[in-house]
Amino acid sequence: MNDQEILDRLSGLGERLPDPPVAIASYVPCLVHGSMAYVAGQIPMVEGSILHPGIVGEGVSVEEAAFTARRCALQALSALRDGLGGSFERLERIVQVLVLVSAVPGFVDHPSVANGASDLLAEALGDAGRHARAAVGVTSLPLDAPVEVVVTAAVRPA
Amino acid sequence: MNDQEILDRLSGLGERLPDPPVAIASYVPCLVHGSMAYVAGQIPMVEGSILHPGIVGEGVSVEEAAFTARRCALQALSALRDGLGGSFERLERIVQVLVLVSAVPGFVDHPSVANGASDLLAEALGDAGRHARAAVGVTSLPLDAPVEVVVTAAVRPA
Amino acid sequence: MNDQEILDRLSGLGERLPDPPVAIASYVPCLVHGSMAYVAGQIPMVEGSILHPGIVGEGVSVEEAAFTARRCALQALSALRDGLGGSFERLERIVQVLVLVSAVPGFVDHPSVANGASDLLAEALGDAGRHARAAVGVTSLPLDAPVEVVVTAAVRPA
Repeated sequence: MNDQEILDRLSGLGERLPDPPVAIASYVPCLVHGSMAYVAGQIPMVEGSILHPGIVGEGVSVEEAAFTARRCALQALSALRDGLGGSFERLERIVQVLVLVSAVPGFVDHPSVANGASDLLAEALGDAGRHARAAVGVTSLPLDAPVEVVVTAAVRPA
Repeated sequence: MNDQEILDRLSGLGERLPDPPVAIASYVPCLVHGSMAYVAGQIPMVEGSILHPGIVGEGVSVEEAAFTARRCALQALSALRDGLGGSFERLERIVQVLVLVSAVPGFVDHPSVANGASDLLAEALGDAGRHARAAVGVTSLPLDAPVEVVVTAAVRPA
Repeated sequence: MNDQEILDRLSGLGERLPDPPVAIASYVPCLVHGSMAYVAGQIPMVEGSILHPGIVGEGVSVEEAAFTARRCALQALSALRDGLGGSFERLERIVQVLVLVSAVPGFVDHPSVANGASDLLAEALGDAGRHARAAVGVTSLPLDAPVEVVVTAAVRPA
């Protein structure tokens, strides 16, 4: 894909890519092999802190959670671009997205939260941002994050 | 694989493919790219409603949950066939299945629930239905579904 | 990769591969197709019993959980080697690892648990063991396991 075009589209959305994430632990933020790129699970960080820490349906609203999912998707794009050598040139498309929501028992509105990530990918990448998705409610996430997003992409081999 | 043969096998099991699922939100039910097909997470739907909504180990029994996992697998096959242009012709095999069970804390019988999905895939596709699997107990699933099933398949490139 | 070299490295770590896991249910421990190998979710087993059964943050400590994650990674390597015909020769690298932690609500230290698996893979395989990772807290795991680890690898086609 055209790198500048994607950056421009993000600009048009009032967004810009955050700095590429650094691993909290012993893994890599984006593993590129052959025609696939696997982005590590992203939790929403702003200036080194979790955005809206807590449980969705308790301290965190659906709207806030959707916003953090959008942030996670932005971070995933940044990790992807960095993993591809600092450009989206080799990106072919997003293929799969897993959205994990740290939610109270009985929570049912995972799709609205997950849309925060899905919509950003579609807005930034157009048709190439469309993906298969699963959304799930979990008990807890690293660092008390409300949402974690796992993105897998197809890429042009180096 | 032979499309008619799979439909016939399903018939022999007393099953037929449900209509291909429609996305509840901004994602696609089945993303096909190159030699892979990623099916979106399936929750068990019958005529627009969740089958056996609730928590496994509380309102939903293991047997009911296994039955919903089977339903999810049928829906995944339908999404896959639709994503491949309305035929299983290009399907090579199922490779990976993730079964998420919305269960009470302390639940231990995820394998019995997940077998509902695994058995259906093996019965419908034979050896090509065998897969690596992970089964997990989660706090909540979209629309109060008891089970969600995520299927990934290998396909012949178009 | 060189099979003997990996076995030697494990020896040097004081580890050896456990017997390849047998499926508890109707799925395969490692599905190899084309250039990918999908290992089924591993729960930590020693002599037929779960190692440190229970909930992390309640009966199971972070250190114990990290140790079980390491055990899961060893089992995954064993399943992978077995799936590749009894040798690591065709293994190219680990690409993705999902670590599921059965934890109390409010648990935040998933990275420390997941490092048990990530570190083992890096120690055993060097740079080829590096991977993208997601770590998640869940309500329950099969057989009351504290941790489950899902490994995906890239391999040389047969």
